[in-house]
Amino acid sequence: MQGRLLRYGVFGESHGAGVGIFIEGFPPGVEYDEEFIAREMRRRRPGGRFTSPRREEDRVEVLSGVFRGYTTGAPLVLFVKNRDVDSSFYERVVSRKPRPGHADYPARVKYHGYNDYRGGGMFSGRRTAALVAGGAVAQLFLRKLGVRVLSYVVQIGEARASVDPQSVDLDRLEERVYSSPFASPDPAIERAFEEEVVDALREGDSVGGVVETLVDGLPTGLGDPPTEGLDAELARGVLSIPGVKGFELGAGFALGGMRGSESNDPWVLREGRVELGGLRSGGVLGGLSAGRRIVFRAVFKPTSTIRRPQPTVDLVEMREDNIVGEGRHDPCIAIRGSAAVQAVTRLVLADHVLRWLSWEALPWMR
Amino acid sequence: MQGRLLRYGVFGESHGAGVGIFIEGFPPGVEYDEEFIAREMRRRRPGGRFTSPRREEDRVEVLSGVFRGYTTGAPLVLFVKNRDVDSSFYERVVSRKPRPGHADYPARVKYHGYNDYRGGGMFSGRRTAALVAGGAVAQLFLRKLGVRVLSYVVQIGEARASVDPQSVDLDRLEERVYSSPFASPDPAIERAFEEEVVDALREGDSVGGVVETLVDGLPTGLGDPPTEGLDAELARGVLSIPGVKGFELGAGFALGGMRGSESNDPWVLREGRVELGGLRSGGVLGGLSAGRRIVFRAVFKPTSTIRRPQPTVDLVEMREDNIVGEGRHDPCIAIRGSAAVQAVTRLVLADHVLRWLSWEALPWMR
Amino acid sequence: MQGRLLRYGVFGESHGAGVGIFIEGFPPGVEYDEEFIAREMRRRRPGGRFTSPRREEDRVEVLSGVFRGYTTGAPLVLFVKNRDVDSSFYERVVSRKPRPGHADYPARVKYHGYNDYRGGGMFSGRRTAALVAGGAVAQLFLRKLGVRVLSYVVQIGEARASVDPQSVDLDRLEERVYSSPFASPDPAIERAFEEEVVDALREGDSVGGVVETLVDGLPTGLGDPPTEGLDAELARGVLSIPGVKGFELGAGFALGGMRGSESNDPWVLREGRVELGGLRSGGVLGGLSAGRRIVFRAVFKPTSTIRRPQPTVDLVEMREDNIVGEGRHDPCIAIRGSAAVQAVTRLVLADHVLRWLSWEALPWMR
Amino acid sequence: MQGRLLRYGVFGESHGAGVGIFIEGFPPGVEYDEEFIAREMRRRRPGGRFTSPRREEDRVEVLSGVFRGYTTGAPLVLFVKNRDVDSSFYERVVSRKPRPGHADYPARVKYHGYNDYRGGGMFSGRRTAALVAGGAVAQLFLRKLGVRVLSYVVQIGEARASVDPQSVDLDRLEERVYSSPFASPDPAIERAFEEEVVDALREGDSVGGVVETLVDGLPTGLGDPPTEGLDAELARGVLSIPGVKGFELGAGFALGGMRGSESNDPWVLREGRVELGGLRSGGVLGGLSAGRRIVFRAVFKPTSTIRRPQPTVDLVEMREDNIVGEGRHDPCIAIRGSAAVQAVTRLVLADHVLRWLSWEALPWMR
Repeated sequence: MQGRLLRYGVFGESHGAGVGIFIEGFPPGVEYDEEFIAREMRRRRPGGRFTSPRREEDRVEVLSGVFRGYTTGAPLVLFVKNRDVDSSFYERVVSRKPRPGHADYPARVKYHGYNDYRGGGMFSGRRTAALVAGGAVAQLFLRKLGVRVLSYVVQIGEARASVDPQSVDLDRLEERVYSSPFASPDPAIERAFEEEVVDALREGDSVGGVVETLVDGLPTGLGDPPTEGLDAELARGVLSIPGVKGFELGAGFALGGMRGSESNDPWVLREGRVELGGLRSGGVLGGLSAGRRIVFRAVFKPTSTIRRPQPTVDLVEMREDNIVGEGRHDPCIAIRGSAAVQAVTRLVLADHVLRWLSWEALPWMR
Repeated sequence: MQGRLLRYGVFGESHGAGVGIFIEGFPPGVEYDEEFIAREMRRRRPGGRFTSPRREEDRVEVLSGVFRGYTTGAPLVLFVKNRDVDSSFYERVVSRKPRPGHADYPARVKYHGYNDYRGGGMFSGRRTAALVAGGAVAQLFLRKLGVRVLSYVVQIGEARASVDPQSVDLDRLEERVYSSPFASPDPAIERAFEEEVVDALREGDSVGGVVETLVDGLPTGLGDPPTEGLDAELARGVLSIPGVKGFELGAGFALGGMRGSESNDPWVLREGRVELGGLRSGGVLGGLSAGRRIVFRAVFKPTSTIRRPQPTVDLVEMREDNIVGEGRHDPCIAIRGSAAVQAVTRLVLADHVLRWLSWEALPWMR
Repeated sequence: MQGRLLRYGVFGESHGAGVGIFIEGFPPGVEYDEEFIAREMRRRRPGGRFTSPRREEDRVEVLSGVFRGYTTGAPLVLFVKNRDVDSSFYERVVSRKPRPGHADYPARVKYHGYNDYRGGGMFSGRRTAALVAGGAVAQLFLRKLGVRVLSYVVQIGEARASVDPQSVDLDRLEERVYSSPFASPDPAIERAFEEEVVDALREGDSVGGVVETLVDGLPTGLGDPPTEGLDAELARGVLSIPGVKGFELGAGFALGGMRGSESNDPWVLREGRVELGGLRSGGVLGGLSAGRRIVFRAVFKPTSTIRRPQPTVDLVEMREDNIVGEGRHDPCIAIRGSAAVQAVTRLVLADHVLRWLSWEALPWMR
Repeated sequence: MQGRLLRYGVFGESHGAGVGIFIEGFPPGVEYDEEFIAREMRRRRPGGRFTSPRREEDRVEVLSGVFRGYTTGAPLVLFVKNRDVDSSFYERVVSRKPRPGHADYPARVKYHGYNDYRGGGMFSGRRTAALVAGGAVAQLFLRKLGVRVLSYVVQIGEARASVDPQSVDLDRLEERVYSSPFASPDPAIERAFEEEVVDALREGDSVGGVVETLVDGLPTGLGDPPTEGLDAELARGVLSIPGVKGFELGAGFALGGMRGSESNDPWVLREGRVELGGLRSGGVLGGLSAGRRIVFRAVFKPTSTIRRPQPTVDLVEMREDNIVGEGRHDPCIAIRGSAAVQAVTRLVLADHVLRWLSWEALPWMR
């Protein structure tokens, strides 16, 4: 589970009944906008040319918490049934030869051999369908308060898109990202992205990527340091997404090579209000949101399953061997992963907005 | 609070009574080795040439949980008194002009002006003294199980140390790191580190850095995915340390530019045991520890307080102004920050080792 | 959510899609024994002569966490579909006239009118179906460790059964309880129980009851004081069951009238082992299990819905009015409630057994 | 730890450095009223004629979270030093002969012999000093919102006070309770209370008691069912107090003998507002506060330590033996325990008021 007031946990396994999300503390009175949720699910859905050809409708069923089109305040449980699965590769091969880059082997050890290894089981990217459904509903809440979240792909392999997080307009950006097959923020980079993906595919290989996220409309002071700062909580959520191996705010790892005179964002006055005059900090200071905009990045490793032989161990015969990936897989998980980052960000922010509201509602005028 | 079985929360403010750590669930029977704890505190202690000249003894007091030299199983509370503080700069200047890079302004907003702004209050790096004390005791527990943790500085400004996380010997590395004024893993880089720091100091500036952490001796299968994977929990802990702006495992952000054929760590047989044949994954797969060694990095921004004028807003007169840092500050917080990363890692791992033991203790033979 | 290592949350609403339970941290390798689970569901199932005539199959669906008949270690989610519902009374009457004894009115206020009021929504006793399913699976785990839990009805109205919790044999007791339409521990009391229920029914009324629970086979030392003692955690779980208004251990409220010389359970030696020589304490001391057997009681108020007019307020016309219950209701919820108490006890104990195992697995021999 | 937004944990051991409370999430801007806190501590303080003669000043030190007389929003840590302790009885006797009624033996087993057994260690009633300090500060917050909490002794041994929880005026009651050496709500019962206590003392015995608590000024809808209902959370908190063996709301266990027509509290209109017309439910329905007033009771067992020989086991010689209590002990822990119940209630309510405010602050007008 993650969260304090709005807490969520995902469940389900890749080749089981389906995947879902359990959310406690979701506020009542939020319109359950099926259109909007379907739009979010489509963004994540497999089937595109540059994503896995697995065909799934990914219709979101409500098991609890919605009545006459509005959330009720009861635990909200969303479920997405699995279909169109073929477990033969897993039964035949993966059950004895753990795939490099996957959790097959540590899972086998941790769960003493009882884990559902088909399709990666609970470790499958499939669980991001549940995250996206939950994130969509979280956004229905956040939009009432003017909070916006957008995640997009800024790097695939060697190709890097260029976005200025300080000046970019979120509305226009969102339009681009949702219409791009690469969740790209910049039409100029699409060709280079396509080349990276097509090259990888042709060579039976996969490629990594980086996802950037912008948040607008947050009040100042979200986050609960010392141990539950907003950045720490976002990092935790984002690193729970399959394939993410790093998280950085603002200038991130580049800050290691900077001077303080360069890295500190100044405080400025804009229309009579104090504002952060830069985003090197990512818009979070001391674990607290520092103003209107937040920016962070997450790196996705290349898809672990590839169609080239990779060294592994045959656990039955206890000898070294090779494994060649089968099944349908995205060549670059960062593309669909961007929808998962967006979803997790929304879930974490919805929790923190609720926490923040609690103090704001106090009678401050003594 | 962070943690599930072993949970910790830090408290205290920079110019208040002191800083401390509250730990619930700490197992009984762990020798409270004062020598060892003092050694760890010395590593973090200010006063060195390249760290802040603030002089503090940093003696760790036990308020609860130790009896006759052993932990009792009751909540463990450690406290480090504050001394040698001069709050005049904060009263005079910071109370009206928020420092760039610090949480002064968002804290003022969040806490409706009631926060203790002296020395940064609860946002001060001072709270890492409590983390280091807690981490030291966590290590006293972990060492019983053969778990080792070491954090060291691999980058200051432009200077980068070179360590091969796959082959390096932790014992020899620890000796070097503890005897280096830069917590450096490599004597060859010390001169370059020194230049970066001295240059920054001379220019009234500060400099960023990167801390790397190695963990040895973990069993396979630590971590509780889907939402409490080991990497997600480490990221959360590490990003709670003041000044940390990013976290990456193994090859980290470089994975965004890689191919899967390159990034997947193979499975190999070593002395009849299945092992991870690389550390591109950082030794964590699907949120589970994958074998013996884990490696991750955290970036520290340059110290926010510098002796050069920086743009800010005078909140009393509501006009833009400058602020020049006063008081004693490390030119590079990554150096002492490395002790905090090490401490948090130990606290998080102690929690996860306890969780893991619970299933291991089950009667697996049916 | 309740629990730390094994955490559970229930979801669903009386007239929605169904009710379910989400369990995180359930250990892998536990046989999913459908027979056993069905037996437990039957015990709770409506339809008997002395319980509500609502007919439901109450088949437990697994949405996550079971593979080839064994739990996998992934989140375990069980779901029981709703059927056979008629919401007309709620639409017509309850939506404007809150029922005395029910949460209709406070729920309307808390959820700002968005709560699903049909059948009591999330406040319905229907959610105990999910608890019983979860408790059954928890028991499949507990029985591996020799832990037994039995709840039974010791009082309905004025009629009280007599059980000696110190000497009674749990096996024989279980047989009786499961074959009694009143979950009664004593055939001699059945007639009096029946009279209480039949009288209440005839008068369009309902009647309260008391449920007692025995636990056998626990090791000494379960529980995490100071704030998570075993008794506190059991109380929390049991008071979450609809209709429960009190919880007491051992001699319970009678202890208020006792002397210490009378109430203290002595320590005795039995076959060379230290044992508690009484159960006035209920078998819990200082929040820790004190030996083999635990005993506690919970009181269920009479079913709130009765077929007699009761004073309420018409919220549309804002005037005082009467309401007469409709729909099918147990005359005495303690009977089926006993299955819920048993289930919650199992869930709470499974969590605490796992916590306890963690320390037990430590290398105690230094 | 207990709580979600305002979380607290107590620490310390009877003969250690002191006892304290760690509170996370305490809102800023609450005046730290030392007078008020001292008054609450005096109520609990030992030294009175009918309570233990242990003399302690019980001055509350602030270790974190208060600045210039107001809470800062940082973790609030209060500490009460121990003094005036004589551990010889524990070293000499209790270390080998566990006291009946105490946690000595199960603690020895759970903590593998490492627990601090002096004065009962973490199981001592001494920890209620920390609870009372924390509860006092929680009340400073609650009083801003008009919430009042009062706990008092309604039964000692055979003597029962009579209070009508529906009609009693809390202001006048508070005056009586705070000036009574028995925390009694009724001057007429004091003599009978005194007799019970004096008789018990004279016989080297102790006596049990029952504490009742009234809460006024709560809004409707506090509590987070299904698993964190207000009653369940109060029960958990109250059962964490040393010596409490039962908890009941409203008519409590008497509901087991009632009919629904008698037990249901009607809904009535008062000055145009819907109100609960009775308190048989205790003012909580479905886990939600149902209106203005809440009433519940907790039973305290007789003090376990008595000056009469009681059967126990000598763990060194492994033979049955007797133990006679030494040291200073209240003859009736319910008296001072009433201050602890009041404190815990305040802490739990402060958490739930904060949770509740979060939803209230939402923009309900669409």
